[in-house]
Amino acid sequence: MARLYHVPLSPFCRKVRLTLAEKKIEVELIEERYWENAPDFLRRNPAGKVPVLRYDGKTMAESQAICEYLDERHPTPPLMPRDPDARYEVRRLCAWFDDKFHHEVTRNLVYERVNKKIMGQGYPDSKNIKTGATMIKFHLDYMVWLLEQRRWLAGGDMTLADFTAAAHLSCLDYISDVDWRRSATLHEWYAKIKSRPAFRTLLADQVPGFPPPPHYADLDF
Amino acid sequence: MARLYHVPLSPFCRKVRLTLAEKKIEVELIEERYWENAPDFLRRNPAGKVPVLRYDGKTMAESQAICEYLDERHPTPPLMPRDPDARYEVRRLCAWFDDKFHHEVTRNLVYERVNKKIMGQGYPDSKNIKTGATMIKFHLDYMVWLLEQRRWLAGGDMTLADFTAAAHLSCLDYISDVDWRRSATLHEWYAKIKSRPAFRTLLADQVPGFPPPPHYADLDF
Repeated sequence: MARLYHVPLSPFCRKVRLTLAEKKIEVELIEERYWENAPDFLRRNPAGKVPVLRYDGKTMAESQAICEYLDERHPTPPLMPRDPDARYEVRRLCAWFDDKFHHEVTRNLVYERVNKKIMGQGYPDSKNIKTGATMIKFHLDYMVWLLEQRRWLAGGDMTLADFTAAAHLSCLDYISDVDWRRSATLHEWYAKIKSRPAFRTLLADQVPGFPPPPHYADLDF
Repeated sequence: MARLYHVPLSPFCRKVRLTLAEKKIEVELIEERYWENAPDFLRRNPAGKVPVLRYDGKTMAESQAICEYLDERHPTPPLMPRDPDARYEVRRLCAWFDDKFHHEVTRNLVYERVNKKIMGQGYPDSKNIKTGATMIKFHLDYMVWLLEQRRWLAGGDMTLADFTAAAHLSCLDYISDVDWRRSATLHEWYAKIKSRPAFRTLLADQVPGFPPPPHYADLDF
């Protein structure tokens, strides 16, 4: 069976969990306190970060590389389109969320509010939280602009771009940092993706000391 | 003709330049002072960063997504292998260099020594330079470890992983921050990649106020 070393509120781990579940690959989840730099874990991944996936005798790191690999090994249902232009758009958006959105929003909110406490790194920095709360509005509006032209973020079909965005938004939703009243278009997109069977694993997460709000696991939010 | 908005010492721009040249796609290079946030440039790329490629009527951002797109559209000579396991390894290493190596090494050295001055952001921070100079040793040793098992970084053939690594190392070599005496294996790998016709565009770069050392453009370095 596959084994994933992860932390619950990491968007990079969630993206791999969504991909595994969509492909119906059974996985054993193991929470990894990677910031403690245990020698065992560093041997599994010298980059010292999660996710790390044990799969088919290999030890794999880097969430985007893992997800594209799983999609190539298990093409049904597809998470990448076939056409190079459409594939480019998926990869561009994955990079947008994992790089720009992550640095401007996820890190400023999830890291400050949750990770810092769990890792024993002190109190949230209100300046960062304010930046994250401001920046998320621009990013949600960008998503709305895309979704007004397309059924899914990268085009007509659901792709890894939707999973990447949903991985970040679901972490932020766990700490009540997404205003779903901002846009009916965005709400509808998230409702569609949240109701997929692959999403169930994320909705069951419980981080000790940080109970999720009631709407987090509610499909009728 | 393709048009690339770039800055000379950006590893992300260099990776795209190497890929375009390897695929024999003619390109007009336009230097972009992206940190000045000119409205024109922000219209081309709302992420406000380089590289931005105008190609075939499209405006494209995100270097990894661009390079994979160019490789899919122009498969000869290939920069990605066909086998999913081998493709995973290429993507893992691209992410390693563009994320971990960049944050620990390139940013600490190139940004501190060059970009800060060009951007009018003050003097180099010696703490960051010291960190970069320490970390590059670990990364070069990791490359040597890979190259002692493989002809190229990701396997038997030259791939986008080699271009990604060479894009970073060539920026660092421009400011004399790579000790090529550290390993004959590494020196041999860089000599092979540096002597490719695709590399010529990088070796001709001149950043005003920062002349490159004589060995930078010398194939017999």
